[in-house]
This record gives sequence, structure tokens and C-alpha cells, in this order.
Amino acid sequence: MKNIINIAVVGLGQVGIYLLNELNTKKKDIELKTGKKINVVAVSAKNIKKKRQFKVNNKIFFKNPLEIFNKKKVDILFEAIGLADGISKKVVETALKKKIHVITPNKALISKHGNYLAKIAELNNVNLEFEASVAGGIPILRTIKEGLATNKISKVYGILNGTTNYILSEMESSNQSFKDVLKKAQKLGYAEPGNPKFDLNGFDAFAKVRILSALAFNSKISKHKCLMEGIEKIELKDIKIANQLDLRIKLLGISELKNNQLFETVHPCLVSKKSYIGNVTGVMNAVITEGKPVGESILQGEGAGPGPTSSALLSDLLSILRGNIKNPLGVSVSKLKLLKNYNINNYVNSLYLRFEVKDKPGVLSQITNRLAKYKISVKRLIQTPDKKNNKATIIIITHKTSELNCSNCLSIFKSNKNILKPPALIRLLG
Amino acid sequence: MKNIINIAVVGLGQVGIYLLNELNTKKKDIELKTGKKINVVAVSAKNIKKKRQFKVNNKIFFKNPLEIFNKKKVDILFEAIGLADGISKKVVETALKKKIHVITPNKALISKHGNYLAKIAELNNVNLEFEASVAGGIPILRTIKEGLATNKISKVYGILNGTTNYILSEMESSNQSFKDVLKKAQKLGYAEPGNPKFDLNGFDAFAKVRILSALAFNSKISKHKCLMEGIEKIELKDIKIANQLDLRIKLLGISELKNNQLFETVHPCLVSKKSYIGNVTGVMNAVITEGKPVGESILQGEGAGPGPTSSALLSDLLSILRGNIKNPLGVSVSKLKLLKNYNINNYVNSLYLRFEVKDKPGVLSQITNRLAKYKISVKRLIQTPDKKNNKATIIIITHKTSELNCSNCLSIFKSNKNILKPPALIRLLG
Repeated sequence: MKNIINIAVVGLGQVGIYLLNELNTKKKDIELKTGKKINVVAVSAKNIKKKRQFKVNNKIFFKNPLEIFNKKKVDILFEAIGLADGISKKVVETALKKKIHVITPNKALISKHGNYLAKIAELNNVNLEFEASVAGGIPILRTIKEGLATNKISKVYGILNGTTNYILSEMESSNQSFKDVLKKAQKLGYAEPGNPKFDLNGFDAFAKVRILSALAFNSKISKHKCLMEGIEKIELKDIKIANQLDLRIKLLGISELKNNQLFETVHPCLVSKKSYIGNVTGVMNAVITEGKPVGESILQGEGAGPGPTSSALLSDLLSILRGNIKNPLGVSVSKLKLLKNYNINNYVNSLYLRFEVKDKPGVLSQITNRLAKYKISVKRLIQTPDKKNNKATIIIITHKTSELNCSNCLSIFKSNKNILKPPALIRLLG
Repeated sequence: MKNIINIAVVGLGQVGIYLLNELNTKKKDIELKTGKKINVVAVSAKNIKKKRQFKVNNKIFFKNPLEIFNKKKVDILFEAIGLADGISKKVVETALKKKIHVITPNKALISKHGNYLAKIAELNNVNLEFEASVAGGIPILRTIKEGLATNKISKVYGILNGTTNYILSEMESSNQSFKDVLKKAQKLGYAEPGNPKFDLNGFDAFAKVRILSALAFNSKISKHKCLMEGIEKIELKDIKIANQLDLRIKLLGISELKNNQLFETVHPCLVSKKSYIGNVTGVMNAVITEGKPVGESILQGEGAGPGPTSSALLSDLLSILRGNIKNPLGVSVSKLKLLKNYNINNYVNSLYLRFEVKDKPGVLSQITNRLAKYKISVKRLIQTPDKKNNKATIIIITHKTSELNCSNCLSIFKSNKNILKPPALIRLLG
């Protein structure tokens, strides 16, 4: 590798602009650690005039990022646009084919096209690095690929989305509804102002699960259909009841090998308040891996925001500058396993069920009879009357049962005149 | 690098023998991930006949490890003898000079001779890797050198010794004395049966602090005199009182930049039971780094034992096999800073003091007057009488004061006929 390295930054949103500033201020440190001088030769964004935190040098500005390839000699390109397809894919693809190393925090792109892009990178003997795509500042991908390499990992799970973790924590501590806390999160920049959907419905965490699976199990990034639930239906009521039961609700991403089949999921979980994961609050992320011989490892850190994201992007940069060329997915794509999908129907959990019912005789027995018919045994039952409205809330914690059995059992309650709405269901961890 | 890599393992204790077995069973996985075939061509230990968990191939056995260099062509050598000097140093030094990569879990060697050995490795363009020397299976060194590279780290601290953490946890949960729990730890293999001194007195944790400092602050491994206290003086009484105060005692290793001066220490700390670090129990280790822009990062995992140690040793092996040649201390030794030492006298903390006194009038005021004279203000005071023995225990939690002021203040209590023994002192974290 030459001693002066030309860099392009495509996408000047919050992350891109913060990164640009870091690249400028950390030049000397980077040279000390790698012996290479970096030089930003091109930046690109839709709008040069948009108000940004740091100044952009107009002389190296490109409206169309693809132009950069014609006009500049680039060694390393940062893609920070963030689309799953379109111009993001085009820019990354073109760069790799032109033997330009690529670094990106784009989880949507990698989880969708990672296998294909990794292959192109390998063919052209350049790096495709995406540490920042999962869990922000936590170097979890590097840890799995390198620090825990040769461990037989059986499970990776954790809190992978800072927005939802903030909302759930804040609902508990401020006693405010989902809607109100979401507004607050948007004001504080923890949730996207326009369309926070992909954070809230679990999609963002799910993309990260896909990437973690591939690295942990040396398998192709999967395209299987999976269980994905967000936090949109979590009510303050559930959070309060969980609190009384010494539990807390967390949105978890889970990837696991079950009988050598891949099981990936994102859904809210009830976890013990005394557990480690139950105490990861606010915008923090945490990833737990179970491997042999290392045992359980935990990594925790800030999961989002331009600072932590830039930290991860620069770690990728240093890896490349130090000459650490390697397969983007740890193992050559051609040698990655193609894992079969674990049948979601067989996923087994204890369940928290909340029924809102009319307060009249026989309703409780209707519910318990139905559960008994499906052999779902009750671990705990709490009925709280709401006399004023002639209603009652029934909370049931069940022993373990499968997804299929549970959905067959509960289907009947969708249309029952004594049960005022379909029961709320939250799975318990473990 | 060639495609077939010859390996030597020197030292066949618990770690060496476990490693040897891992090297044999993980051959295919290693080839998949690196494209290299490994081949163990030499092993060495004092006694070939010692009973070991796994069989040793007699044909490649060397009683004198230095013989290996004459008889075999070795590419990578594992040093697992564990001495700070002597044959450990000789073997590592010789290997590096012969352009053989070295991997070692030997914190005593690296903390004492790391600067010198890293220089030899750099001169000969080979790796000297020691991930396993700090916090067992937790890839904390790689994380600091790579995952958090370019972050400005201001502090690294944590629970760095599994033996002492197990003892403190077990004293609390089993209500047994230090001596009894130590015996249990020795039986379970958590503490060395012969001489557990270096775990108990903080020396082991301190060696790890030295290594962490160098990597976190890009400085030479220091030789400064520092504050080092172990857990030998912790009594069950202190653990019980801490418990009542919602605190827990942990042996922490701390490395910090204070006014650009290096402060390294190991001592027992009182931490909140509700804090993260207060809930890392048993043989677990945890390391917390504070950096910009990444924020606070936490890594937790099993800190000792042959499994986690082998995990770290193999991660080093994979790094070398993937061709990631780099400076052992992150930055070339010649460019590492030489940090000035922070004056221990200025170290400031709130203190827990326990006085065992004669139960007679005036004793309490003697103590409080003395504290007042040194402007050490009292945050909390609890006096518990022991009428039967005509004694009393006085617990004082102070506001913050410096080491110097504190030791000047307390010196008088070493010879006071009403104070039955020198007061127990434990610092509070933060």
C-alpha cells in the first residue's frame, strides 16, 4: 500500500459529517498508528448547501457520487448514505470493482446484499468493512471475527437498537405513554423525526441479527422468513405490571443455532430486573455471545449516534491502513455454510398474557379452560378489577409452550364478546 | 507466509495442555478461516511423565525448550511457562530474534519486559501477541488496539483478577471467612494451591493494569511505583457492613490519565450494589473503557481458566496466520510516550473507615476531633456496641480526601490504647 491514501466520503448526514471532522482532526494519530497519511479527496451529498455541523470543502464536492470514480484516484471510500439498494448499492459495487476498499455503517445494505458484495470484494482483493453497521461503537463484529475466532459460538443476542431501548426505559422511568416518549425521543435525536418505523418495528435490529448470525456461525447472510416484532404495541400498563413482577421489557435480537438450524428473531422480552440485560438502559446497546471454550462474553457500549459510529468507522479504516486484508464475512463467501431455517412454530417460551375482559362470572374460567385444553399450564395469575368500568385485567404467566400451540390456543380470543381485545403477549427470556 | 505453519508449545501446565488439544481439534476450522495448515512440531515441559489431561506426543517432546531452536523449524511459538524472567524470557527473546512469532499469556513477563521484547519483535518483523495476558477470554487488548483505535481513552478500569473476585463474592454469599473461602477456591482450582499470594495481594491485577495503560495511552509500559493493595485484609465483617450500606467490595485495577500524568493502581473498592461493576461476580472479569468519541464501553467475560485463555491464544494465532503483522504495543516502541507519574499523595477518594475501640466515653470524640483537624468531613457514622466484650465498632464514611491527608490523619491511631487495632480502610469508587 502506498504511503498517501486518498479517501472519499459519500453521504454527509449526521454520520458522514462527523466522520469527516474526525478524519481531519485524527490525521496525526492515524499516521502514528499506521504509518500512512490520509487525504480526503472527494465528498458527496445531495445538497451542498444544507446546514451542517462542520464545514465542507466545496472544491472536492460531488453532487453525483459516481462522478468521483471518473475524476479522482480513490483508495478507500466511506458509504454513509444508508439505503438498502439504489445509489448506496451502486456506489459500493462500483468502488469494489475498481479495487477501492469500502467502509460502511449501512446495515440495510449489508444484511440484504452482503453475500454478493463480499464476493466482489474478495474477487478484487479489497476490504469491505462494516463494523459500524451493528451496535454502533461496540466492536462486536471484529470481536467475533478475530477476538473469538475458533470459538464454537452457539448463540448471540442482545439489545441492538438504541431507539427502542431508550423508549422502553423512558416509559418506565417517566411513566409516560409510548406516543409521548416517542415524541421526546424524536426531539432528542434518538428517533428519526420523519419515519421512525424501522427502529420501532424491529427491522433495524433484525438487519443486525442477520449480520451477526453470518459471522458467528460462518454462514451466508440468511434470507429466511423469521419472527420479527417491534415495540409499537407495548403499553405503559405492561411496563408497570412487569415492574411489579420484578421484570422489565427489552427488545431483544436473538440468533441461535438450534439442532444446527438457524433461528433468528427480534421481539420484546420480559427479563429479570436483576439480570445483566435487564439493567442495560437508555440508548445503550449490549451483545452477549455464548461460545466454547470462552464461555459467555458481554460487550456493552453506546449503540448509536455519530460519535460511536465514527469510532467504528475509523477502526475499520485503521484495519485497512495496517494492511489487514481479509474476507468481509470472516470466511470466504464460497466456503460459508447455508444453514437451514429453524421452524418458528417450534419456538418455545414462557408467556406473559394480558387479557382485558368484562367483569362477569365465567370469563376467567373460559380463559383457563382454553389454556388447559392446549396443555398450557399457568405459573402465575393476577386478576385486577376495574369496577368503575365493569372491566378486569387478567395477567397470566404461563409455563413454556410453543409458538404454534400458543397461536392455536389464543386464536379463539380474537372474537369473544367478553374479551374486549386480543390478548397482549410478551415472551419471557430463557 | 507459507501454507504449512510449524508450531511449538513451551510449557504444558493447565493452559499449555488445553491449548495443545485445541490446536489439534480446531485444525480444520483454522484452515477454513486462514487458508493455513498448522502442524505442532515441538512441545516442551520440565517433566514428560507428569499426569496431564491430554496425551503428549513423546516424539516431539523437548525437556530443554532452547533445544527446539536447533532441532526444528518453527514459525510460531507459544510460551506458557509463566515466569517473569528466567527461561520464559530467554525462550521468547530467542524466538523473536530467530524471526519466530511469539504468543504468550504471560502477564508477568510482558508487564516487566514488554517494551524490550516488543522492540525485538519489531526489529525482526514478527508478531509478539499477548491477548491472553489480560482478562482471559475477553479480547480487551485487541479491542483497544483495533476496535477502539483513534479513540482518545482517558480511563480503563475493572475487575481483572478472577480469584479475588470469586473470594469476595463467595465470602458474601456463604458468610464464610477469608481463610475458609480461600481454601475452597484452592480446592476448586480458582486459586493456586501452593502460593496464591500474587493473586491475593493485587500483583496479578497490577501486571494487567500496566499492559492496559500502555495500549490505552500509547505509552511505554511503566515502571513507576504505585498504589497496590490486595484483599488479604478484607474481613467478613467489612463485607457484611458493606452489604447493609448497599455496597459491595471489589478489587479493582484502575489506569487513568490525570493531568496527562499516569495513575495506575489496584486496591479494594466499595461500589454500589446497583452499579454494573457491583454485579460482576464469581470468576468473571470486566473491563470498562472511557473514550472519545465512543463513550463508555464494557467488556465482560470469564477471566481465567484454560478454556478462556486458549480462546485468546487462538485469536492471536489467527491474527498471525491472516498476516496481520503489527506493532505489539499498537504503536512502534520508539514512538511510545513516556508518561510522568501522578503523585499518589494526591489521589482523592471518599473513605470507609472501621475502628474497633474500647467502649468508653471520649473515644468517639477523639476520632471525630482528629478527622475534623484534618478537615475530613463525615458523611455517615455508625457505632455498634459489643457490650459483652466492652468494645464497639465505629464505621465512618468520609467525604473526599487525599491519600496524604488521610494517612497523616490516621497515623495517630496506630498507637492509641483505646483503639484496639489500626483502622480498616477501604476506598469508595468515584
